[in-house]
Amino acid sequence: MPLSPELVARFSALVQPGQALTEVEVIAPYLTENRGLYHGHSPLVLRPGSVEDVSAILRLASETGTPIVPQSGNTGLVGGQTPRTGGDDVVLSLERLNRIRHIDPVGNTITVDGGVILAEVQRAAEEADRLFPLSLGSEGSCRIGGNLSTNAGGTAVLAYGNMRQLCLGLEVVLPTGEIWDGLRSLKKDNTGYDLRDLFIGAEGTLGVITGAVLKLFPRPPGHEVAFAGLPSVDAALKLFEKASSLCAGALTGFELMPRIGVEFTCRHIPGVRDPLPSPHPWYVLIDISTTDSAETAERMVHALLEQGYEAGLVENAVIAASGEQRKALWHMRESMSPAQKPEGGSIKHDVSVPVARIPAFMAEAEKAVLAAMPGARICAFGHMGDGNIHYNISQPVEADTREFLARWREMNEIVHGIVLAHNGSISAEHGIGQLKRDELAAIRSPIEMELMRRIKDAFDPKGIMNPGKVLAERKS
Amino acid sequence: MPLSPELVARFSALVQPGQALTEVEVIAPYLTENRGLYHGHSPLVLRPGSVEDVSAILRLASETGTPIVPQSGNTGLVGGQTPRTGGDDVVLSLERLNRIRHIDPVGNTITVDGGVILAEVQRAAEEADRLFPLSLGSEGSCRIGGNLSTNAGGTAVLAYGNMRQLCLGLEVVLPTGEIWDGLRSLKKDNTGYDLRDLFIGAEGTLGVITGAVLKLFPRPPGHEVAFAGLPSVDAALKLFEKASSLCAGALTGFELMPRIGVEFTCRHIPGVRDPLPSPHPWYVLIDISTTDSAETAERMVHALLEQGYEAGLVENAVIAASGEQRKALWHMRESMSPAQKPEGGSIKHDVSVPVARIPAFMAEAEKAVLAAMPGARICAFGHMGDGNIHYNISQPVEADTREFLARWREMNEIVHGIVLAHNGSISAEHGIGQLKRDELAAIRSPIEMELMRRIKDAFDPKGIMNPGKVLAERKS
Repeated sequence: MPLSPELVARFSALVQPGQALTEVEVIAPYLTENRGLYHGHSPLVLRPGSVEDVSAILRLASETGTPIVPQSGNTGLVGGQTPRTGGDDVVLSLERLNRIRHIDPVGNTITVDGGVILAEVQRAAEEADRLFPLSLGSEGSCRIGGNLSTNAGGTAVLAYGNMRQLCLGLEVVLPTGEIWDGLRSLKKDNTGYDLRDLFIGAEGTLGVITGAVLKLFPRPPGHEVAFAGLPSVDAALKLFEKASSLCAGALTGFELMPRIGVEFTCRHIPGVRDPLPSPHPWYVLIDISTTDSAETAERMVHALLEQGYEAGLVENAVIAASGEQRKALWHMRESMSPAQKPEGGSIKHDVSVPVARIPAFMAEAEKAVLAAMPGARICAFGHMGDGNIHYNISQPVEADTREFLARWREMNEIVHGIVLAHNGSISAEHGIGQLKRDELAAIRSPIEMELMRRIKDAFDPKGIMNPGKVLAERKS
Repeated sequence: MPLSPELVARFSALVQPGQALTEVEVIAPYLTENRGLYHGHSPLVLRPGSVEDVSAILRLASETGTPIVPQSGNTGLVGGQTPRTGGDDVVLSLERLNRIRHIDPVGNTITVDGGVILAEVQRAAEEADRLFPLSLGSEGSCRIGGNLSTNAGGTAVLAYGNMRQLCLGLEVVLPTGEIWDGLRSLKKDNTGYDLRDLFIGAEGTLGVITGAVLKLFPRPPGHEVAFAGLPSVDAALKLFEKASSLCAGALTGFELMPRIGVEFTCRHIPGVRDPLPSPHPWYVLIDISTTDSAETAERMVHALLEQGYEAGLVENAVIAASGEQRKALWHMRESMSPAQKPEGGSIKHDVSVPVARIPAFMAEAEKAVLAAMPGARICAFGHMGDGNIHYNISQPVEADTREFLARWREMNEIVHGIVLAHNGSISAEHGIGQLKRDELAAIRSPIEMELMRRIKDAFDPKGIMNPGKVLAERKS
């Protein structure tokens, strides 16, 4: 149903002058996402300046049955933040809700608006001599509301957990416009159902996260980053087990990379070069940070690599000698996704399996993918310690990109089939959005989908909150 | 409505012979809880032997509108597991669902039935050279289903989190009898709403937890326990801050105890004696466990106490020299609650505030409590690192116990009022049950109670699951 000019005017009156966008060119960036997989339609983008504005918008939306798509940094990878193509969804942008409300270095918390950019939270924490550990490729533009709505993970999950673990309290505007003030900063609170964790990861389908209390941590004085060449994925698993028991909570990152990924980054990303003199089939980046002293981290990284050499797990390794070198090693890892772009089309998967199953999963998936598509270049890398692999497939050299990308679903089915056989997940950290919605419904038990549906209906009886994301729209 | 003999027979036929209990003396232990605060009524206790039995029972309960009270170890402290007095609730005991289903030392997971005793999970982990870190006073009799349903905390939350952090997947029988198989063992899985965390902490009001995948950890080779006498709660907070930044993830416990609590344990608990030569106003028990080496823990505990002495925070301290001494120090801490019993009546609170607010909370609460009841003996102790204080008040010497206990609600109001002024929680780890149900409804916003009510109705439309716990029964 198209939005009437009257309704556009009523919505526009709820925000400050100039903050209701209707011009096609101005609106365009809000309607498409980074990868270009989704292009939506909307007559109106609203940029509220306060929680009360958001509340008024949702009250009117509820009254009039107008679909609302919350959007924060617009960096999501599954189309969760993009309006639908057919409808007349109103985009509610959080980018003006960007205040750091309060920082408490003694209590180790920071309270922020839902639209604050992740890097600004990191910076504010640093200025107070604290660490906010969430770190991911898009941290310069993604915003906390989106990080929470997708339960973001990133590179430090191993030691600090994902957003669900990093958040103590929330403020949410419900589809009715009512405001739930759950901005608590308690480590322990067993008082009824866990509403917080229901909104986290709900991808904006149950309400709009407008504020959050996040955990801060002491800045670790010890920090070591090592880059090691390994003979196999199995060696990487065994090295990870050693690292877990040697470093425990000090093991901040354990990232797996294939030879082809290192080649791609050296070829396409300016300034990146292979830190080891000869090639190895697999690599891991090991990040250790210790809070007691710098020496502990140093001792740990040396002990781990020594044990790795002795056990034949590590072929060669380098330990970063400076902060700059640490950054360079992480830069290579973080460039692994963009470095695939110049190689042509890339079919992507964000999967997880129980950590101990990674070698079996990788072997089976490689066999199946190459059988279906000889010459496909598998660039599977990721957060090995979390069991989370970004299983990306670059097109065969000189293949037709369009023809290759047309096989996206077929390759998904192959890879996800093996993931499911290992009791894995088809979305480890990116979420469901539009991209995996129907697949989720197909693989999950009817009772699980039914429980989610009942929660959706209980919170959003009119179905106005980000319709068609995570769950299919209800047939009325 | 009384349960008809026909219905008793139909329910009884769903379990193995001898597993439907109806005799008054046999049933009695299921109808009362440890503290003796709640005595319920029930015509029937069912002891199913399988998940399918549980499913059949709930299907029949749903059909016939029969209220079901799930019970595992019957060690809860808020009456959540006790049937109501007026009704004819059927007790569903999980004690026969006590299998360890599977242990995976490589993947660091253990899969168990909902009725396994916590100590058996700890033991199974130990036999596989792993650690299951949940530890609490009743670990010899409490069962995992109850630990999950109350999101249990205990003494190692600081390093390992509470049950919500220790659980990867669940199997739940829904009020309809349908089985939700969410037994996943993934560290990362962003596929829809967080059903798991909704069942955890729901106190059996949304379904019956019949199975769980729990996390295991490497057994730390380094373990140090220190006991320190301090001048004030403020010194304890400052020492905790030092400990957090010095030990980070290696700080497993940081427990606060008052002088009076140490006196009570020395007086009443056989074998407990004051480890320090002279008295101190406050004490902390510090538990440090390190996974890299025993030396790291040793270095940390010495460095921490040294810094504490230098800063005037620690008056005197002792470090346990053996495993036996470590146990003895923990035994004193764990005896703090039972040691109050011989001192007469005790009015209890299980509260939390932001950690940095503990000194202010303690000072204000003491003033208010003593103003209302001169001579009251405040024995406030607990998990300082989590902001969780068991604020217990022993009766004045020679006061009348009955008269003292009659002031339970009045004292609750005083203490909880101060807790709420500090944005704290009236139930940090014990839950709501019957004890705090009406108080919760009084202090939480209407919208928060409404959202919980909607979830309850969505999962349990007939209102048969543990009615009257957490939320008031619906008026029909």
